[in-house]
Amino acid sequence: MNLRLVCRLLGIIALLIGGAMIFSLPWAYPQLGYRRALEARPDEFEWGGFFGLLGSMAVCGVVGLLLLRLGRGSESAKLFRKEAMAVVGLSWTLATVLGALPFLFAGTRLGSASDPHEFGPRMTVIDAMFESQSGFSTTGATVISNLENTHVIPHCILFWRSSTHFLGGLGIIVLFVVILGQGSAGKALMRNEMPGPSKEGSEARMQHTAWAFAGVYCALNAVLVLLLMMFGMSSFDALCHSFGTMATGGFSTYNASLGHFDSPAIEYTVTLFMLLAGSNFTLLYFALVRLQPGRLFRDVEWRVYASIIGGATLVVLAVGVSGGDFINLGQGLRYGLFQVVSVITTTGFGTHDFDAWNNFGRGVLFLLMFVGGCAGSTGGGIKVIRHILFLKILRLEVELSYHPSVIRPLRLGGEPVEDQELRRSILVYFCLILTIFIFSWMIVVALEPDATWESTGGDVGHKLIDSASGVAATLNNIGPGLGTIGATRNYGHFSQLSKALFTVLMMIGRLEIFAVLVLFFPGFWRAR
Amino acid sequence: MNLRLVCRLLGIIALLIGGAMIFSLPWAYPQLGYRRALEARPDEFEWGGFFGLLGSMAVCGVVGLLLLRLGRGSESAKLFRKEAMAVVGLSWTLATVLGALPFLFAGTRLGSASDPHEFGPRMTVIDAMFESQSGFSTTGATVISNLENTHVIPHCILFWRSSTHFLGGLGIIVLFVVILGQGSAGKALMRNEMPGPSKEGSEARMQHTAWAFAGVYCALNAVLVLLLMMFGMSSFDALCHSFGTMATGGFSTYNASLGHFDSPAIEYTVTLFMLLAGSNFTLLYFALVRLQPGRLFRDVEWRVYASIIGGATLVVLAVGVSGGDFINLGQGLRYGLFQVVSVITTTGFGTHDFDAWNNFGRGVLFLLMFVGGCAGSTGGGIKVIRHILFLKILRLEVELSYHPSVIRPLRLGGEPVEDQELRRSILVYFCLILTIFIFSWMIVVALEPDATWESTGGDVGHKLIDSASGVAATLNNIGPGLGTIGATRNYGHFSQLSKALFTVLMMIGRLEIFAVLVLFFPGFWRAR
Repeated sequence: MNLRLVCRLLGIIALLIGGAMIFSLPWAYPQLGYRRALEARPDEFEWGGFFGLLGSMAVCGVVGLLLLRLGRGSESAKLFRKEAMAVVGLSWTLATVLGALPFLFAGTRLGSASDPHEFGPRMTVIDAMFESQSGFSTTGATVISNLENTHVIPHCILFWRSSTHFLGGLGIIVLFVVILGQGSAGKALMRNEMPGPSKEGSEARMQHTAWAFAGVYCALNAVLVLLLMMFGMSSFDALCHSFGTMATGGFSTYNASLGHFDSPAIEYTVTLFMLLAGSNFTLLYFALVRLQPGRLFRDVEWRVYASIIGGATLVVLAVGVSGGDFINLGQGLRYGLFQVVSVITTTGFGTHDFDAWNNFGRGVLFLLMFVGGCAGSTGGGIKVIRHILFLKILRLEVELSYHPSVIRPLRLGGEPVEDQELRRSILVYFCLILTIFIFSWMIVVALEPDATWESTGGDVGHKLIDSASGVAATLNNIGPGLGTIGATRNYGHFSQLSKALFTVLMMIGRLEIFAVLVLFFPGFWRAR
Repeated sequence: MNLRLVCRLLGIIALLIGGAMIFSLPWAYPQLGYRRALEARPDEFEWGGFFGLLGSMAVCGVVGLLLLRLGRGSESAKLFRKEAMAVVGLSWTLATVLGALPFLFAGTRLGSASDPHEFGPRMTVIDAMFESQSGFSTTGATVISNLENTHVIPHCILFWRSSTHFLGGLGIIVLFVVILGQGSAGKALMRNEMPGPSKEGSEARMQHTAWAFAGVYCALNAVLVLLLMMFGMSSFDALCHSFGTMATGGFSTYNASLGHFDSPAIEYTVTLFMLLAGSNFTLLYFALVRLQPGRLFRDVEWRVYASIIGGATLVVLAVGVSGGDFINLGQGLRYGLFQVVSVITTTGFGTHDFDAWNNFGRGVLFLLMFVGGCAGSTGGGIKVIRHILFLKILRLEVELSYHPSVIRPLRLGGEPVEDQELRRSILVYFCLILTIFIFSWMIVVALEPDATWESTGGDVGHKLIDSASGVAATLNNIGPGLGTIGATRNYGHFSQLSKALFTVLMMIGRLEIFAVLVLFFPGFWRAR
């Protein structure tokens, strides 16, 4: 393991995070951070948040320079597989710690769900790490019960909170292309050839690809900001919600999430952009930059992704309208489609209380959490392509049980994609997610006292399903779950131990397990 | 596919089932079927049940002879893999249909949970198939709410009901050794050499093994009957409960299951025999016939099996006593150990209402459902050995992610058991169970009306978890689940569609998936 190289790259990341905090500073001015939809207009400069950010930037600078110093002399070293995994896992850990500083230094509080004038207790270190991880992992789960009171959380800190989504989404797009794209799993999943100057010279092409994707990501963010402002949002709200959408994060600036605006135009626009954010960025590049939208519509994964959204919306709509969850088809389509897209893309925005739906609708949403977006998107979850291959592999395996000698290739869109390693890695991925889910579920049920439900008017009889949804919502980077962490609730009332576990789960899910798990294997750190 | 051979073997099975019904006839005499623990002593000969059994025997005879006639000329044909799978899958289907006849012909009713004098509606065809499948698959889930009223279900039919457990357990022990033992999966799981006259001549050894195992199974049944009679059971009750124990079935003759007797001696005895029934019969043969008990205690799978039971009992006890579910340690040990063993061995007997435990205890029981007994036992579930290999494989796979070139063998008890096919088949098994579980769960949630909960005083808010437990309890052949199908309830109030699905799930779980699923593949039936 070339630790010098790892330190140098981590140092760069620390400096980038510190640099990114600069963009949160201006929102400390009361005029800028103004949220049009709220009544009270803030008039004090947010000194607490401002100095909190400045202090955090200082720490980022010191840590970054220290790491760069430790990593001197590694400029020409090559990045091997192990170093790449270490950088991915450790950079996310470092980002979480550094990203938590503004919350802590600014004295952010948890607020109270019942009383808008109560500030609630200060965020603990674990609370801040949870919120920071939730941002960088583009989960969007929050521990803050009242986002609309600037004494609970100032505008500039709220902006930083949404910025972590932007950075996390960008990081995923770039990291997964440039670094993990080199691994066999990444290569196998990225079955579309990369856009780039030439078929040869993979390193130059990788860099070009990373820039192209970052460009698409930023451009879509910009377009969405303009559209949201056109539909009446302030620049502050438009930026924050755009970050939350394109990163499939889900942090809002209002307690009622996107439902606060109660605007069909905003909801359908955000639905469209969530849909794009959950699509493969290679295909988006071809569709939007090279103007070949046909490649998007011809892609097997994207077609299945769109079909799942259509199918799930239809059943939710049918059962919901007949069961009286929606007053009519129009309302059902608006809320149902939004919620289905919000969950499958792992965004987690809410426009109304889906937890009041019938059990079938809630069950569908729970399962959609595990589907996730397309590979190469900012979406979390298991990813659509893995589900397609998973079902195909199982079908072939049942055939193999009575025809052990007949080997049929795995096909995707008619093309054979035979690769025994791919077959095994898909099965392993599902099994790992299952194992992590089961163990985490039991830990939450064991650790979390019944009082968490009783004290907040929840039903302790729902502890098993609520806990399962919490694990699913963090492991798959959704955000809200069912019951006590449903659409109108948050994670604030959970115990510190559970929050710490959820924080780890968000990272495991975001980095697709391996880059996090290997950090705990002593063999990983030994010299190659 | 040699259909003649398949028909001949099915014909033999039909005749065997008809023959087995003879043993239920005597219990139509009121003096014999007498249950000491019940107050009312029956005094009428059970004509309904008697003729129901006779009629069923006639049908079995006709069907059997017809199938034998269709299978003429196949006496010397060899049993290949495909025919073996077809026989296993179809024989279980045939057994379910034939085994349902006595219930239907005798006019068995469903009873009423609230009023002991009400007979309830007659069993439908699906109800009878459910009960029959539940017996043969050694699940022990029932649709009959009142077992103690002879006008609901006569003694002789009750005896037939428990007989199906005995036959199912015997079938599993013999079939899995003789037929499925030939497949690679069976071979790999049966890592102990078979006891038999010689290492050569596998067919003769197989037959010897089958007889030896059947002998151990019957002997343990006989010993348990004597012990239970010693502790005060009537011969009728002792036989029925012994069948339920050794087959890891769980059908009782009382509404309160084994808890009816409220006798620690009976409960600890049954606990011991459930533990044995969940052990590998190869090891039991060595321990009991060859008097080498050390082989049992040295076996890796058995040690893990015993450790899981010990560990689960400890946590259930610790959380249960501190949470006030048990009044003291003694009561906690008695109920906790019994319930843990009852669930992990997939028996499903109950001695008290475990559904009133805290959520952690309920969650542990839910997960134990998926563990199951040892390979080569009568227990259902995924089996302990698969869990051991599963976790070892996942560990190796994570290591492989950063050391792609280092191939480490899979080890079991220090011995390498490297076999890439075994690795894949273990992962495939878990993935198939997961997929079947998820789809069935959603089907039950979608099909089952909320009224199922509302009409029986259940909480419809628990629909998701109750349905999940129902699928788990049938797929893993346990019997009772949580909530509306908890320890004090049954499946009687579920809709016909759900019952039909549960019936299929019991068979899929019992036959370890493949032998059932392949029946639905057209390619399976085409000529080889």
